[in-house]
Amino acid sequence: MTYKLVLLRHGESEWNAKNLFTGWVDVPLSEKGTEEARRGGTLLTEAGVTPDVVHTSLLRRAITTANLALDAADRHWIPVKRSWRLNERHYGALQGKNKKETLAEFGEEQFMTWRRSYDVPPPEIELGSEYSQDADPRYEGAPLVRTEALKQVLERALPYWEDEIVPDLKGGKTVLVAAHGNSLRALVKHLDGISDEAIAGLNIPTGIPLFYELDESLTPVTAGGTYLDPEAAKEAIAAVANQGR
Amino acid sequence: MTYKLVLLRHGESEWNAKNLFTGWVDVPLSEKGTEEARRGGTLLTEAGVTPDVVHTSLLRRAITTANLALDAADRHWIPVKRSWRLNERHYGALQGKNKKETLAEFGEEQFMTWRRSYDVPPPEIELGSEYSQDADPRYEGAPLVRTEALKQVLERALPYWEDEIVPDLKGGKTVLVAAHGNSLRALVKHLDGISDEAIAGLNIPTGIPLFYELDESLTPVTAGGTYLDPEAAKEAIAAVANQGR
Repeated sequence: MTYKLVLLRHGESEWNAKNLFTGWVDVPLSEKGTEEARRGGTLLTEAGVTPDVVHTSLLRRAITTANLALDAADRHWIPVKRSWRLNERHYGALQGKNKKETLAEFGEEQFMTWRRSYDVPPPEIELGSEYSQDADPRYEGAPLVRTEALKQVLERALPYWEDEIVPDLKGGKTVLVAAHGNSLRALVKHLDGISDEAIAGLNIPTGIPLFYELDESLTPVTAGGTYLDPEAAKEAIAAVANQGR
Repeated sequence: MTYKLVLLRHGESEWNAKNLFTGWVDVPLSEKGTEEARRGGTLLTEAGVTPDVVHTSLLRRAITTANLALDAADRHWIPVKRSWRLNERHYGALQGKNKKETLAEFGEEQFMTWRRSYDVPPPEIELGSEYSQDADPRYEGAPLVRTEALKQVLERALPYWEDEIVPDLKGGKTVLVAAHGNSLRALVKHLDGISDEAIAGLNIPTGIPLFYELDESLTPVTAGGTYLDPEAAKEAIAAVANQGR
């Protein structure tokens, strides 16, 4: 008995295209991102992977990606669960800032620490400011988040993995998780047992489903899983690493 | 204490545009239907109606309508529940047939009986035929449906109303139901206590949210509810009545 899990990072958003730090700011997919999402669904169909349930974040770039991919795969009718725990990393005071300008302003070392260190978060966002979510009704009942490093993302994603996703997997369901670069990196770190240092070098491309077969102890049968379009994934991973340049 | 319910009939589908009986055949929205769905969301925002949970059928024209309307209303992140019990009426052997040709072939009386009688269903669909759903995985566990009159739609929608929608209403949630001409007519018949005869004359237009405030016994405060664009609703209702001509 093995379990089937598919991770899908949302397609390009309007702010990815503009090279801005997005985090919890709720921007829509770009036209390219819309196409990527549909293609993600086609890749599921071609691989014969049929999700029985989908989990998404509360952000529209992940929600729309799930909607479009599932429609393309003729699985638009499956049950849906959502949680802020699958949201992108909160980028704190960097939300809304241009990546290139931030790099120029703060220098390579500080920039890479904020982007890639495991446990050093950017400065906290000012409450009530344009890109803060402190008054957003969708986070009612959730703790107030003002900035996060990957460590904090893992700490808030893990309870959702255990309480909501694992029971679906153990119920024999093929589970699709439509989420974000960093919430998916957190899950992959956990699944593949990647060290705090090594995770810095791991990028997940947009719109290409990453398929995991898990054994009974929820360990990946193939370490790192399998991209449903391995060639495209390879190229995209190289491109992500060069963001901000 | 009153409860808030919004009914939303999906926008025009590709088969509405072609004047075919659709029923449980899972056709997409037309371009016009896509626009109608987005406008439905804008109407919600303009009226200050903010759904806390959405219920849909298992058919993509209702699912996509909900997705687009909620995105336009900035409520794309709310919880979602789906059920075959909110599906359009199953049109039996008429599914896939042209309405005008069916009218010409069977005559006005038979045609209107199939379209509008409360309890006379069309002939059953042949199992395994092109437009039958007997092998569709989404209906696993549901009873096999081969044809329905409005009476059967009400009988299968009512348990869902009682078990899933009413608890959300009583929990103080504003509930959006994104569904179909006949599953929504069934709910309206129940809510407004419309007779088996009078329901024949009731049409619900596409894409215009129908808002109900319900008292503690779940009786509408205003009989028939309130369309969020009353002028457009009036025109559209007249147009629906002339379908198949």
